[in-house]
Amino acid sequence: GGARFGVLYDSTTGAADELALHNRFTLNIDAATETDSGIEFFARVRVRGGNSGTAGITNSGVSAPRVGMSVGGVEVAVGNIKGALEETPGLYDGAVGLTGLGDLNVVATGNWDSFSSAGAGVNGVEVLYSAGAFGAHLSHSPVSDLTALNASYAFGDWTVAAAYQDDAAAGSANDTWLVTAGGSLGNFGLGAAYGDTDGNAKFRVNGSAALGAGTKVTAFVADDESAAETIWGLGFTHSLGGAVLAGGVVADGTGENQADLGVRFSF
Amino acid sequence: GGARFGVLYDSTTGAADELALHNRFTLNIDAATETDSGIEFFARVRVRGGNSGTAGITNSGVSAPRVGMSVGGVEVAVGNIKGALEETPGLYDGAVGLTGLGDLNVVATGNWDSFSSAGAGVNGVEVLYSAGAFGAHLSHSPVSDLTALNASYAFGDWTVAAAYQDDAAAGSANDTWLVTAGGSLGNFGLGAAYGDTDGNAKFRVNGSAALGAGTKVTAFVADDESAAETIWGLGFTHSLGGAVLAGGVVADGTGENQADLGVRFSF
Amino acid sequence: GGARFGVLYDSTTGAADELALHNRFTLNIDAATETDSGIEFFARVRVRGGNSGTAGITNSGVSAPRVGMSVGGVEVAVGNIKGALEETPGLYDGAVGLTGLGDLNVVATGNWDSFSSAGAGVNGVEVLYSAGAFGAHLSHSPVSDLTALNASYAFGDWTVAAAYQDDAAAGSANDTWLVTAGGSLGNFGLGAAYGDTDGNAKFRVNGSAALGAGTKVTAFVADDESAAETIWGLGFTHSLGGAVLAGGVVADGTGENQADLGVRFSF
Repeated sequence: GGARFGVLYDSTTGAADELALHNRFTLNIDAATETDSGIEFFARVRVRGGNSGTAGITNSGVSAPRVGMSVGGVEVAVGNIKGALEETPGLYDGAVGLTGLGDLNVVATGNWDSFSSAGAGVNGVEVLYSAGAFGAHLSHSPVSDLTALNASYAFGDWTVAAAYQDDAAAGSANDTWLVTAGGSLGNFGLGAAYGDTDGNAKFRVNGSAALGAGTKVTAFVADDESAAETIWGLGFTHSLGGAVLAGGVVADGTGENQADLGVRFSF
Repeated sequence: GGARFGVLYDSTTGAADELALHNRFTLNIDAATETDSGIEFFARVRVRGGNSGTAGITNSGVSAPRVGMSVGGVEVAVGNIKGALEETPGLYDGAVGLTGLGDLNVVATGNWDSFSSAGAGVNGVEVLYSAGAFGAHLSHSPVSDLTALNASYAFGDWTVAAAYQDDAAAGSANDTWLVTAGGSLGNFGLGAAYGDTDGNAKFRVNGSAALGAGTKVTAFVADDESAAETIWGLGFTHSLGGAVLAGGVVADGTGENQADLGVRFSF
Repeated sequence: GGARFGVLYDSTTGAADELALHNRFTLNIDAATETDSGIEFFARVRVRGGNSGTAGITNSGVSAPRVGMSVGGVEVAVGNIKGALEETPGLYDGAVGLTGLGDLNVVATGNWDSFSSAGAGVNGVEVLYSAGAFGAHLSHSPVSDLTALNASYAFGDWTVAAAYQDDAAAGSANDTWLVTAGGSLGNFGLGAAYGDTDGNAKFRVNGSAALGAGTKVTAFVADDESAAETIWGLGFTHSLGGAVLAGGVVADGTGENQADLGVRFSF
């Protein structure tokens, strides 16, 4: 598990809080057993809590379970699935700040299935496959009516990936395809992604640089066809030797800024 | 704790799902301490989650606690009690499938108190007594207004039990009495039960056979006075050496079928 | 963590239950990590459940997190804070019974911030400082608009403390100041406290005596300016060598009595 705390800033007029106290706690409860024949059966629920600012303060919750089995390079899981679009390698590359600051670096702009940290999830089924440098992930939920597939290939320090999602729900428009590429050159990281969600295109490039011992700077620029302004983000992390000081600032598609600063740690 | 996952089938017209993904997670959090004089004080809450199909998907919950003490053969507990009717030995004999498939093998047809796995329970009090082959259990809840008693006796591989429940709630009709008997003859198991709930009689016979290494087949037939059709069930379990493959099929009192198939494991 | 169970009594006409079954379960989930430079980062959530009587029976819950850091004698935390008024040394002195019986010994009569055991808390920030015999605690919540400060000093077996709370919420009247003093003389304990909440004065004196091995009797008398009757309480605890038998009786400000009896234990 892990935890984080800090301060959020939002320049948006009418935001719930211009400055907000932020905190979050995550504890994964993992259970697993292995049969004599080498099949691993596993189950996970997550205890997740935390609040930001003054609106909608809540207690913690325990997620619906993700239960499944893995053998060789194949994993099958049902319940609170991770979702194939969500898990596309490189999708979250370029993330900045303590909290991700709205994940504006992600090039998909609709809805997709993902593991719900304190909620019900989508009671779906998914298959994950990996073989050496190749990985693939197929997911489907009868609750969300979303079906998604991603595939990725890693060569040396670089990874390319592609994903497609079909939305079968009536009146819903989350059909998405996207591609990502990213990797590293010594102390520098580079990435790019392009996505199309029901005809709305979004593009992102990102880069990072390691500065001396334990400090890293990350930045991204993104263009969302439906947004009035160019989106960008700039952030840093600094190792405290057992915890990480992190902060960042972004400009969203309306030209407003969000920023955060705080500490996160694992346990 | 334990977990399970698989697929459910229901032939009923208008069922929420004809085929449903199923998963469940259970983690008991047990705490206990023993005094110098040998009294054990204990407390349990249960973390329980899981979903079936597409309707009413929810996150996991933590049960109300069951707290009590035990000394010698006597256990006293309050809160989220187990309930004496629910705990009658042999009541669930003949259970089939991954999930129990509606527990149609149980001969009580009203409501009774039982430990709520993710809910509030009935804030009752209960006393359990065991001495050698004899066991007894008395429970009462001021919330449900149910009072129940069971008594059982084991001789060799056979156990007989009887239970009675009084329902003191106004306008409620869960007065129940029942008897059970069951045991084993080498690789074969046999059982029978008869219950009367507010005048409605239900009868069940059940049998099982161990087939080779790790495989077991179980069947039951039941007649519920208020049901149009004879109830039956057939199921199997097969050991995977650390997990269990289980499946079954039942016919309910309206002649419809439910079936399931999946894996369960403990941790 | 810990648990307790027993019976509550309330003489009040129209009380939900004259006699009520009571039980409670508490499990703290604490996580911490220490950096190379000696800063400790910590997070806590609490699993809390329990019910009393027949009204409002609920399952257990997981609290919002309290997350923070400590270094030297300074601790900073955000989220589900403890609250400086709540944490004033001596505030709860004179507590009687298994459950505290309404905490009538506390001389503050308004609202204040405190760690919510199964709820959301007030998403605040607090700083705790201790240096030898001196301690101080400052807390603020933008949710409750309460700001509180306490300071305390211990000399030998005696401690004195003072606290002040400012209520900045519109239409709310929880401005409070209070002082406490308490300590011990061999087998005897003594204490006194005075508080003023928005002009309403409350005074309390309390004493305790250790009787033989493992038995202690505690009593308090309190006068609340807004109450019709003098408030008093009398209780005992008796060690069971690993658990504690506790009971008490109080008279509240309307002259009604509440009493309890039961066992509590830690794990």
